[in-house]
Amino acid sequence: MFIRNAWYIAAWADEIGATPLARRICNEPVVLYRDRQSQPAALLDMCCHRGAPLHLGRVVDQGLECGYHGLIFDRSGQCVCVPGQDRIIERTRVRSFPVVEQDAFVWVWMGDPAQADPAKIVPWPYHNDAVNWPHRHTMYPIKAAAMLMVDNLMDLTHLGYVHTSTIGGNPSQHVDAKMDIERTPLGVRFTRWMLNSIPPPTYVKAVGFQGRIDRCQKFEFVAPGAVLQWTGAAEVGEYRDGNTDSSKLQFRLFHGLTPETETTCFYFWSAANGFRQDDPAATELLFQQTGAAFLEDKAVVEAQQARLTELGESNLVDIVSDTVRLHMRRTVDRLLAEEAQALAAE
Amino acid sequence: MFIRNAWYIAAWADEIGATPLARRICNEPVVLYRDRQSQPAALLDMCCHRGAPLHLGRVVDQGLECGYHGLIFDRSGQCVCVPGQDRIIERTRVRSFPVVEQDAFVWVWMGDPAQADPAKIVPWPYHNDAVNWPHRHTMYPIKAAAMLMVDNLMDLTHLGYVHTSTIGGNPSQHVDAKMDIERTPLGVRFTRWMLNSIPPPTYVKAVGFQGRIDRCQKFEFVAPGAVLQWTGAAEVGEYRDGNTDSSKLQFRLFHGLTPETETTCFYFWSAANGFRQDDPAATELLFQQTGAAFLEDKAVVEAQQARLTELGESNLVDIVSDTVRLHMRRTVDRLLAEEAQALAAE
Amino acid sequence: MFIRNAWYIAAWADEIGATPLARRICNEPVVLYRDRQSQPAALLDMCCHRGAPLHLGRVVDQGLECGYHGLIFDRSGQCVCVPGQDRIIERTRVRSFPVVEQDAFVWVWMGDPAQADPAKIVPWPYHNDAVNWPHRHTMYPIKAAAMLMVDNLMDLTHLGYVHTSTIGGNPSQHVDAKMDIERTPLGVRFTRWMLNSIPPPTYVKAVGFQGRIDRCQKFEFVAPGAVLQWTGAAEVGEYRDGNTDSSKLQFRLFHGLTPETETTCFYFWSAANGFRQDDPAATELLFQQTGAAFLEDKAVVEAQQARLTELGESNLVDIVSDTVRLHMRRTVDRLLAEEAQALAAE
Repeated sequence: MFIRNAWYIAAWADEIGATPLARRICNEPVVLYRDRQSQPAALLDMCCHRGAPLHLGRVVDQGLECGYHGLIFDRSGQCVCVPGQDRIIERTRVRSFPVVEQDAFVWVWMGDPAQADPAKIVPWPYHNDAVNWPHRHTMYPIKAAAMLMVDNLMDLTHLGYVHTSTIGGNPSQHVDAKMDIERTPLGVRFTRWMLNSIPPPTYVKAVGFQGRIDRCQKFEFVAPGAVLQWTGAAEVGEYRDGNTDSSKLQFRLFHGLTPETETTCFYFWSAANGFRQDDPAATELLFQQTGAAFLEDKAVVEAQQARLTELGESNLVDIVSDTVRLHMRRTVDRLLAEEAQALAAE
Repeated sequence: MFIRNAWYIAAWADEIGATPLARRICNEPVVLYRDRQSQPAALLDMCCHRGAPLHLGRVVDQGLECGYHGLIFDRSGQCVCVPGQDRIIERTRVRSFPVVEQDAFVWVWMGDPAQADPAKIVPWPYHNDAVNWPHRHTMYPIKAAAMLMVDNLMDLTHLGYVHTSTIGGNPSQHVDAKMDIERTPLGVRFTRWMLNSIPPPTYVKAVGFQGRIDRCQKFEFVAPGAVLQWTGAAEVGEYRDGNTDSSKLQFRLFHGLTPETETTCFYFWSAANGFRQDDPAATELLFQQTGAAFLEDKAVVEAQQARLTELGESNLVDIVSDTVRLHMRRTVDRLLAEEAQALAAE
Repeated sequence: MFIRNAWYIAAWADEIGATPLARRICNEPVVLYRDRQSQPAALLDMCCHRGAPLHLGRVVDQGLECGYHGLIFDRSGQCVCVPGQDRIIERTRVRSFPVVEQDAFVWVWMGDPAQADPAKIVPWPYHNDAVNWPHRHTMYPIKAAAMLMVDNLMDLTHLGYVHTSTIGGNPSQHVDAKMDIERTPLGVRFTRWMLNSIPPPTYVKAVGFQGRIDRCQKFEFVAPGAVLQWTGAAEVGEYRDGNTDSSKLQFRLFHGLTPETETTCFYFWSAANGFRQDDPAATELLFQQTGAAFLEDKAVVEAQQARLTELGESNLVDIVSDTVRLHMRRTVDRLLAEEAQALAAE
């Protein structure tokens, strides 16, 4: 079950070019392509004639041409050419999905097209600001439900266990972090304070901290699948009043989870460097370190999915570190229920 | 659902030798072998004792010996030896299937053995005529239903889209070909005329055409899975009266589609060269070019199968180029219905 | 369907060390590990918090620590540490399974722990007697039901067909072997006599027989999955009174079949050399020859499983060599029925 009336990341904008791209989103086979005007478009990836996947075709002036018998579909999904046939009946069409290109993403709306308001897209302007926030991005295919990856980001006590060899450090530091939590209409926001703590070696190397430091992480989950992260560090004492303006090191991570099927998803993520912006090596290093840690998340969450697929979640026990995760899950459940209710009322 | 009372190609005759061959046909596991008299035979590939596949056994004087505990079955499927046991009860037997070796094929009858009339086998004597029709043959396993491969051959407008890099040429030439269509009791026959057309480069190279040419393709579908093809070309004007005797280039292709499962099949095909019979390289070239094109068909049809398996055929739209294909499908549906009716009446 | 209240071999004792081992037993995901006191333990391989497999964790002083959020479970399955949480509610626990380390095996009890009596474990003291019975052991994963592997060992007429290239020899010798059969409460015992027979080349090479010999094999099946084997050979005439004390060559094989799923199992086996105990090469050779033969069994039984999975066992025909196998199957069916009855009566 997926939230349908929502924007999902379909692809990084730079993934979509002249060659059609096949991608399953919310368990629908979708073909993504750019038309001759360079506008992204998304259609059901199945020709309405004989069912061939449209991603095997090619972009032509009038739209996307099926690679089997040459039917052409425009970006609305209407067939505009049937070779050898003059009249085209109206139902010679495939389903199309609203798409918007914004902040280096192509977003897609899998629900009722009439409700597809681009204003609802989560903004992430840092992808457009190469001066202050140079970034690198990629996508990891994950053999686990998107929600399990969001779960992962909502309980950061896992850092001391999953990421021991990368960004983890001392488990108790993460377990004992002071938390500020705030619910929002579409999710939850939380801040983790680790004041007067020993800096990770990578921080020391990056900005030359001498002694203990103040650390802070700000997260926001926005349904259905975005997690926005800001991380900063400053000399010890600087964050004591809750103000992080004096950070010596800061970066932003974007986590976008898009369901492929009920048990697999796409993990679109970027790392934007906000402290040594004129040094491409700093951005690259941040990206590489982050990527290594996310592969550790992938491994544990995929293994978790296999167990949950077999044995279910009904006997699991929540613990104190699940607080934010449960906020998040309640929001998603509420949105799913509202959507089901609206559908039933139609 | 398969037509059961029909001859299917089980194998090329040269595939069946001393070593038993396992092949699933119409979703039944079959073992094919030659007995000590060199006669082909087909049994259910499962010993009636403990279920071991018989293809793991070996051919002995009395028949096929199971590789697990040594039971021997004759070509009728009757067990003729149980090691250490004197009496053999009658039901110690496995199912056998009628087989006929003809025209380089081994044909098998998957239905009621009493109805297995060899006269119903589609003849293709060209396989026996190495002087006038030297040929080469092979088999492609296809991850798609046999019917989807027959569909492919019944709508040749696909040539301009699927085979752009091989035998395709100009799409409109194939779309605009003049068609003569004739229904038959077991299928459909059609002729495609492309008069006064530009010869494909391969034709020019093969027989030295100087200007435009007349082209013709004659196809016949014979249920359940044979498609017979003759292709010819002559100097422009030669075909104007519908007579193709003056062809300068001609070849015959045999397409035999045998269901393995509901969604996979075997594509037995041959290319017989009728224009430069004394040149083995001409036959080889024809075979290689044909094979390359058929791999393109395989790719698109397998991708089509995946979509149809997931989303079904019910919402598809027929177009004008489906005429012959629909004739073919109606014939197959009629034969299936007749078979179901006969079975219900028993 | 598996017998639950029984000891199964979970692993060779030397497979279980500091790193947790994941193994599916009777279709339950189990994690095996040794605690800091070197005692083996077995838990359900799924954390009760978020479902992560516990085998991704690590052994710590208090027990097994989950690799996701750091919960720690003792060998009874009780959670003894939740990071960041003082009180631990009682149901924060995972299922544990009784285990016993004995005779180089770790045995596990998959049923009601209250009935797990270590006295019921099949003893095999030869694994502890390196002087008289030096041995080597391993485990083969098999893509077939455990019962099909036991079947294999209960009808040794297969030796002349499956093992033609290894230990088989003349089929009729195995078919004609004189059999003594004795039922036991948990299985069946049988002795095969092949008196006055030609020695296999390996026997000649091993102990220098000059002419014909007397051979004997003693087998016992003990439910749910152990087959104990003694094999001996002596100068011709020595076994005439049924006494095998004068054997010149003897060895013992242990066959332990543990269900992984309904259609896969683990084959734990060892070869103990009782005739040239001071020669490690003799033990090694016995192990290698035995292993080669067992791989032949694996191949045929896996192929058998595929057929039985598809077509069932209901139409199979028993033959005379199935006598012992049917004793065995009746015992297992009786035990399953008793267990079902006891469960229904609760």
